[in-house]
Amino acid sequence: MASLDAVFSAYESRVAELEARAATNPFARGIAWVDGEFVPLHQARVPLLDQGFLHCDLTYDAPAVWDGRFFRLDDHISRLEASCAKLRLRLPIPREDMKRLLVEMISRSEMRDALAQMMVTRGIIDTRQMTSDKAVNNLYMFAKPYVWAMRRDVQQTTGGSAVVARTVRRVPPGAMDPTVKNLQWGDLVRGMFEAQDRGATYALLTDGDGNLTEGPGFNVVLVDGGVIYTPDRGCLMGVTRDSVLRVAKGLGLEMRCEFVPVDMAYRCDELFICTTAGGVMPITTLDGQAVAGGEIGPVTKSIMDEYWAMHYDDTHTLEVKY
Amino acid sequence: MASLDAVFSAYESRVAELEARAATNPFARGIAWVDGEFVPLHQARVPLLDQGFLHCDLTYDAPAVWDGRFFRLDDHISRLEASCAKLRLRLPIPREDMKRLLVEMISRSEMRDALAQMMVTRGIIDTRQMTSDKAVNNLYMFAKPYVWAMRRDVQQTTGGSAVVARTVRRVPPGAMDPTVKNLQWGDLVRGMFEAQDRGATYALLTDGDGNLTEGPGFNVVLVDGGVIYTPDRGCLMGVTRDSVLRVAKGLGLEMRCEFVPVDMAYRCDELFICTTAGGVMPITTLDGQAVAGGEIGPVTKSIMDEYWAMHYDDTHTLEVKY
Repeated sequence: MASLDAVFSAYESRVAELEARAATNPFARGIAWVDGEFVPLHQARVPLLDQGFLHCDLTYDAPAVWDGRFFRLDDHISRLEASCAKLRLRLPIPREDMKRLLVEMISRSEMRDALAQMMVTRGIIDTRQMTSDKAVNNLYMFAKPYVWAMRRDVQQTTGGSAVVARTVRRVPPGAMDPTVKNLQWGDLVRGMFEAQDRGATYALLTDGDGNLTEGPGFNVVLVDGGVIYTPDRGCLMGVTRDSVLRVAKGLGLEMRCEFVPVDMAYRCDELFICTTAGGVMPITTLDGQAVAGGEIGPVTKSIMDEYWAMHYDDTHTLEVKY
Repeated sequence: MASLDAVFSAYESRVAELEARAATNPFARGIAWVDGEFVPLHQARVPLLDQGFLHCDLTYDAPAVWDGRFFRLDDHISRLEASCAKLRLRLPIPREDMKRLLVEMISRSEMRDALAQMMVTRGIIDTRQMTSDKAVNNLYMFAKPYVWAMRRDVQQTTGGSAVVARTVRRVPPGAMDPTVKNLQWGDLVRGMFEAQDRGATYALLTDGDGNLTEGPGFNVVLVDGGVIYTPDRGCLMGVTRDSVLRVAKGLGLEMRCEFVPVDMAYRCDELFICTTAGGVMPITTLDGQAVAGGEIGPVTKSIMDEYWAMHYDDTHTLEVKY
């Protein structure tokens, strides 16, 4: 993975530069856009009475900035719009304004690698009026230095350890629609605690009927016999999941988006999880047992390489002017 | 319901007095306790980075104040403690301090009828550290003038209209434990929209397997053949539900807390919903059809009378000194 070594070594330099800038730029460690103003992230506050806080009545999306370029920003905003429509929320400002503000936020912060977040909430309205068309939805945005859901050294050397949660199942689509990106993490947090209790880092949740769904903030992908499998129900249609599928297509791999029986995770050739905050993250230990040989597999490595290459492709990126 | 008429007529006078006080008392329309300070509720803000907002990683409880007395406050705090334990959260301050602050909050506001809320959140910690014992949990408290989930005139004259939701089911206990009072209302908000679309006010959610669970913020109780039925699974163990059961016992009624098949709601003698914010609320129309005769039933009326009488019983109340 020589190319990745170069990509990440350059990243390390940028992190060090950002750290130096934090002495003079109050936004370098994080920036938020609240009530039409930019504020240092750690000072940002939201109204207690916002239904986004009072009933988690909100949706959000989280695009990344890598090496000074937003990655697939339009896709994230489009998904946010779709999520809003499903919850009967509206983008409080036009998407072009949102895009402009996101770019300005990153530019002001001088972060060259960041994770941004756009949250649309129901707003400040009486609980019994939440369904009223009088609700004035709110938008909160913020960005912080790029986040690694799996540490970089772990993703590139040993891979991570996961469990299939047995004390909790994923919320079913008939209760909460997982294609609407949401922050109702009750089941996912239970999974995180179970993983920790069992000496692992990541929890994969089933649908309660023997099929894999997703984990806390990531999709699950299996490689078996040269075929890519990923659940297509009970989980978010992740942008990274989609990037993985595009990359796999380019590599000539067969792909099946369908029910993935949980037992397949114990007999597949390779297993990885994926999300915007970290990309492609190999799982080499499952329920305390090595996945295949316990090494990061060749298909996972190829996908990881191509995934990061996409971040330097103008088709998928929007450059930030600093 | 002569006794209730007197109770509510006195309440109306207190509401008018409070309204007059709002001219000089900035807390009379709502008060919050955030970061150790009392602030007018509409000015209260919470840190954007609190995991309570970022992942709804919190629990809460909501005791009422009626005619200058907290109602069953210890029971609410005990349930909050139990909810915290289940989520591996801790009360950030001792319960006696919490109690003292709640009383002070009400006293300062001069509200004699209020709904208070205590929220315990995971706190400000990196998402990947949410399960760490380093998380410093936060407590936010607030109170606002007493809330009626069903308008008073409606509860005492026509009763309300509900639907059994058919587009959404309640989150199953295997995903999120409904006995942990939470604000992950994704399924409940879907139910509220469905009720509105179908010309009703309240949504009753099933467990997806043909049994009733609860609705947005309330439990469901049926009366059939002189027996009280209420679900004991898939729903919150409501304090008002418990008060109703105590009252029913006092009235010599038989009670069954068990699976309640949804079809029973269409053939029972009386149907009501109950919550701290409003008490006992008769449902007289279900899916557009009259429940029994479409009138508020005699058992519901008796329970409502006794429920409000409990609010004047020293056993269950804690007086606020103003």
